[in-house]
Amino acid sequence: MSTTTAAPAAPLTTIGTDCSALARGAAILGTGGGGDPYIGRLLAEAAVREHGPVDVVQVEDLPDDAVVLSVAMIGAPTVMVEKLPSSAQFAEAVRSLAAYLGISPTHLACIEVGGVNSTTPIVAAAELGLPLVDGDGMGRAFPEVQMVLPTLSGVRATPMALADEKGNTAVFDTVDNRWAERLARTATVEMGCSAITAQYAMSGAEVKESFVRGSLSLSVRLGETLVAARQRNDDPVEAVVEVLGGTVVFEGKVADVERKTVTGFARGTARVTGTGRDAGQEAVLRFQNEHLLVEVAGEVRTTAPDLIVTLDAETGEPITTEGLRFGARVRIVTAPADDRWHTAAGLTLAGPRYFGYDTVAIRHDGTTSEGETR
Amino acid sequence: MSTTTAAPAAPLTTIGTDCSALARGAAILGTGGGGDPYIGRLLAEAAVREHGPVDVVQVEDLPDDAVVLSVAMIGAPTVMVEKLPSSAQFAEAVRSLAAYLGISPTHLACIEVGGVNSTTPIVAAAELGLPLVDGDGMGRAFPEVQMVLPTLSGVRATPMALADEKGNTAVFDTVDNRWAERLARTATVEMGCSAITAQYAMSGAEVKESFVRGSLSLSVRLGETLVAARQRNDDPVEAVVEVLGGTVVFEGKVADVERKTVTGFARGTARVTGTGRDAGQEAVLRFQNEHLLVEVAGEVRTTAPDLIVTLDAETGEPITTEGLRFGARVRIVTAPADDRWHTAAGLTLAGPRYFGYDTVAIRHDGTTSEGETR
Repeated sequence: MSTTTAAPAAPLTTIGTDCSALARGAAILGTGGGGDPYIGRLLAEAAVREHGPVDVVQVEDLPDDAVVLSVAMIGAPTVMVEKLPSSAQFAEAVRSLAAYLGISPTHLACIEVGGVNSTTPIVAAAELGLPLVDGDGMGRAFPEVQMVLPTLSGVRATPMALADEKGNTAVFDTVDNRWAERLARTATVEMGCSAITAQYAMSGAEVKESFVRGSLSLSVRLGETLVAARQRNDDPVEAVVEVLGGTVVFEGKVADVERKTVTGFARGTARVTGTGRDAGQEAVLRFQNEHLLVEVAGEVRTTAPDLIVTLDAETGEPITTEGLRFGARVRIVTAPADDRWHTAAGLTLAGPRYFGYDTVAIRHDGTTSEGETR
Repeated sequence: MSTTTAAPAAPLTTIGTDCSALARGAAILGTGGGGDPYIGRLLAEAAVREHGPVDVVQVEDLPDDAVVLSVAMIGAPTVMVEKLPSSAQFAEAVRSLAAYLGISPTHLACIEVGGVNSTTPIVAAAELGLPLVDGDGMGRAFPEVQMVLPTLSGVRATPMALADEKGNTAVFDTVDNRWAERLARTATVEMGCSAITAQYAMSGAEVKESFVRGSLSLSVRLGETLVAARQRNDDPVEAVVEVLGGTVVFEGKVADVERKTVTGFARGTARVTGTGRDAGQEAVLRFQNEHLLVEVAGEVRTTAPDLIVTLDAETGEPITTEGLRFGARVRIVTAPADDRWHTAAGLTLAGPRYFGYDTVAIRHDGTTSEGETR
């Protein structure tokens, strides 16, 4: 029996060879982005089978002088599906950053809990025999390097290492985290639109200050809740919504999806024709790797930084933006992000205006962030 | 009295505050590329004034275990003219590479003798108090990182550091030197189309095997020869041609110049209408930072890797590709490159086909490289 089948509310202590619940829950928190969770799960499970289980450490249990590196895939999820990373890339990214810093990491972490980036750090942790922190830098997924809560606390993304599947590495050391994004993104595009990165070297004290706590445990709980509800013939979407503290804002059929891969991102729009309670209305999802904005009947209903999640209407399975297909029956769920995202600095970093949408941030419940008027 | 006014044939032993002859000669060897020699000269002279003269070491006098780093500007010369590098960038690029390698350089070197990159290493050498090697990796200028004789000897371009004027640095560690070019070029473009690089870390023994010897001394000799001929009312172009062992292949007026900056390079074409002995004919110069091909009367006359140099018809002053102006009276000179460029491997690296011209390499004297048929 793997630990991922432990009681829902218990914090994770170890990650075994069954990462299905964690990957499923992380796909929900990934809000459509962060890459294919199935691929991340396979990579993590293979690494655990080869190297043994990964110890999980709660954020509050980290020594203040712990040396924590975050590991992630960077690039377009549409490309990650086609070009699997090798296990050597993870070790190489960590080795490259550790050598540049002249340190030995004591723990690894997820910088974003969404999708593939909740499970890719498991691969690195298993490969290197390091414990993994039960937390992440976002509480969701976002498309750019600087869009993490540690940026709000003044933590530097760089030095930051990239490793591609050919054996190339790059280390960036930048004046701010936005420049880390710019230089890492262009290098990722040149490397073939996806790479493995080690970044945001932090002390245990910095992790305690800036991370979202218990993200991996929450992912497992979400995944287990979804499957358990289905097995009980309960509504899996409602069960997930309850754990998230969210709302079902629309249900319908996907009528149209436009997407293109631009400068390393998968950008697009999906139109959903209402069914049932929403018959006769239309919803529009706008995404850039992740869902960033949902309109219902021509009005903005919710925006980033809050979570916008598309679930299969029947099975409750999360659908990634690249997995959206014509005719799919979906329910669109919104849920609250970490409160720090709703500060002025948080909204500057990852609010709707940053992504090019001319609107104040609308929370999952239809209200606006403090200090903003609609 | 500066050493750059020493007798023409004597090797350099030190570089003082007058870099005019060196810069002028380097502009000739730069074959139109490598950036504005005037800017490089000003930067070098300012650094020597501030930090004192730079010692110059002959290649044959290098200890085999010397630790030699090459310093250069990378990017589009058209941009370098607008965005002067700061002296801190040079030190930062070297520091970044040395830290990554965990070494302390004993000497600095020029990777290309052409244009600004003959004088930029003087800035770094003065700043860091290190001696400079009298040699270079090309015997000319070429537009891409991997296009150096050390590549032919199996020397790695990486680890390679970039530093921009904002304070950002990047270190690349690549599987081959072509990948160093790809990743460094995209980063340079993102950094604003020019940056300072430290690269090609080599031992003294490797420098002895792969470098062109005496390049800085040759630059000084070319510069002094040009000025001396003019002062004697001799033909400065013929005096330069004699030192280069070259030929005047065309004389005329620049009729048309097309250029654009594409993916970090200044690419273009210049048409020259013949005058005097070449009246009634037209020459076409094709360049990518450097002059790469010259056609006379519709026929390819000379191609890279041999040198194609445009000199002012009267003063003999070298004209960079970005300095070519409508109406300028020019003489086009061709001269031999280092013989290693004419091997099969050398031509693969920097022959005309690499640059997209469907022709065998034509030498300065109109013959083809061994083993190729026209």
